Amino acid sequence: MTTKAQSLDLHKYTSTVCTALVGKTAEELDRELDIILPKEPDVLEWRADHLETLADTGRLLKAADSIRKRAGKLPIIFTIRSVHEGGETIDIDEEAKVEVLQQIAASGSVSALDYEWSNNRERVTGVQNACRKHGIKCILSYHNFQETPSREEMIRMLKEMAEQKPDYGKLAVMPQNNTDVLQLLDVTEEITSSLEMPIITMAMGPLGGITRLAGWQYGSVLTFAVGSSSSAPGQIPIDLVRRVEQALK
Amino acid sequence: MTTKAQSLDLHKYTSTVCTALVGKTAEELDRELDIILPKEPDVLEWRADHLETLADTGRLLKAADSIRKRAGKLPIIFTIRSVHEGGETIDIDEEAKVEVLQQIAASGSVSALDYEWSNNRERVTGVQNACRKHGIKCILSYHNFQETPSREEMIRMLKEMAEQKPDYGKLAVMPQNNTDVLQLLDVTEEITSSLEMPIITMAMGPLGGITRLAGWQYGSVLTFAVGSSSSAPGQIPIDLVRRVEQALK
Repeated sequence: MTTKAQSLDLHKYTSTVCTALVGKTAEELDRELDIILPKEPDVLEWRADHLETLADTGRLLKAADSIRKRAGKLPIIFTIRSVHEGGETIDIDEEAKVEVLQQIAASGSVSALDYEWSNNRERVTGVQNACRKHGIKCILSYHNFQETPSREEMIRMLKEMAEQKPDYGKLAVMPQNNTDVLQLLDVTEEITSSLEMPIITMAMGPLGGITRLAGWQYGSVLTFAVGSSSSAPGQIPIDLVRRVEQALK
Repeated sequence: MTTKAQSLDLHKYTSTVCTALVGKTAEELDRELDIILPKEPDVLEWRADHLETLADTGRLLKAADSIRKRAGKLPIIFTIRSVHEGGETIDIDEEAKVEVLQQIAASGSVSALDYEWSNNRERVTGVQNACRKHGIKCILSYHNFQETPSREEMIRMLKEMAEQKPDYGKLAVMPQNNTDVLQLLDVTEEITSSLEMPIITMAMGPLGGITRLAGWQYGSVLTFAVGSSSSAPGQIPIDLVRRVEQALK
């Protein structure tokens, strides 16, 4: 018998906190979960690009099942982040990566796949179809660790993403000044009130901290916080995100 | 011999936390200080409009001296907030209020006076002159508990305030939506980089919470947090403001 991972259901104007697993081995992942689970995040993102190897699919599926069992009611987002969008170097090519994603989707061990929107259209569609087929969610994502695109460009990208009909669209940018941060929040507000696709947005780094704390007030459906190790610059500890949420309510 | 209150020296891009004293009597103020001082705010604002009476100047000056002694190294802002800007009803008229402010300035027990910029120009100048004469700071303030003026209006007001040459200008507004909050931060950034006058800004209520947590990143030189009781809507506990500051650095 198979038990499936919980569904990833995210809602606008609600603070939902995700924390990343970045272990290199099954043992490291296990130790991370020891630290993270007592902190009670709402969602886990398994950043599998941190694994020593992705070539051994049998081992990967075993690790996925083990994480699912420990996660209990927590939905799991499975992500192999590309190097050009802030991920680690991996030992398989893009075609093999898509196959891994499809197998993970079929396994029932995860609740959602995250795949970069910048990948070629055929592969993006392949990942989306695998999600649909196996009843899990698909997040299309865009990360820019250098800068924050203009307001118009961010809106254009999110609208284009929405045309591809993922369950969620994600936009993570690096602000170079306060105006960039305010524009990211402004875009989040505008897209949330004008598009059906729920979005996950953040401005990274210290300047962007407020978007991780209060992005939900602007419509972002998920925030990434530190459970054990951070997976991107500017992440804030889970308990602090929760306390701020309570204070802002 | 007289010991004078500490100087109020506020700096841009530094998180400085003020908490309000709102006791009705000397005894209540004493109990408030018991609760507040261990929380280590950077500045105290004595909201004297909360006092049962302001008519007995002798008693007021005695209370001021007693607060100064207990405050030790903490600068004290003395404020009799007008009813039309969110204060309590008091038992003296505006002319007598200005006299009280002048006597408090002369006493050496406080570090700054806050006076509403909307008062008639002669009285504003009278309060500013008393501050200058006695070597304490003057804050000119504007509060709007109904709404957030337009971006252009807020900039115009702060520029007009600056022409009056106070030590600090304060702008507290009530946001009706997220755009109002983003505009308050945007105006804070713009004025901070274009005017010499340091400003204290905030958007009140739950929507404006991020301006109390991260306003310093945009240039606001002071944030009001809860020590014992809050003095305006949306204030956040001191320790939470501090933890967020550390996380954003």
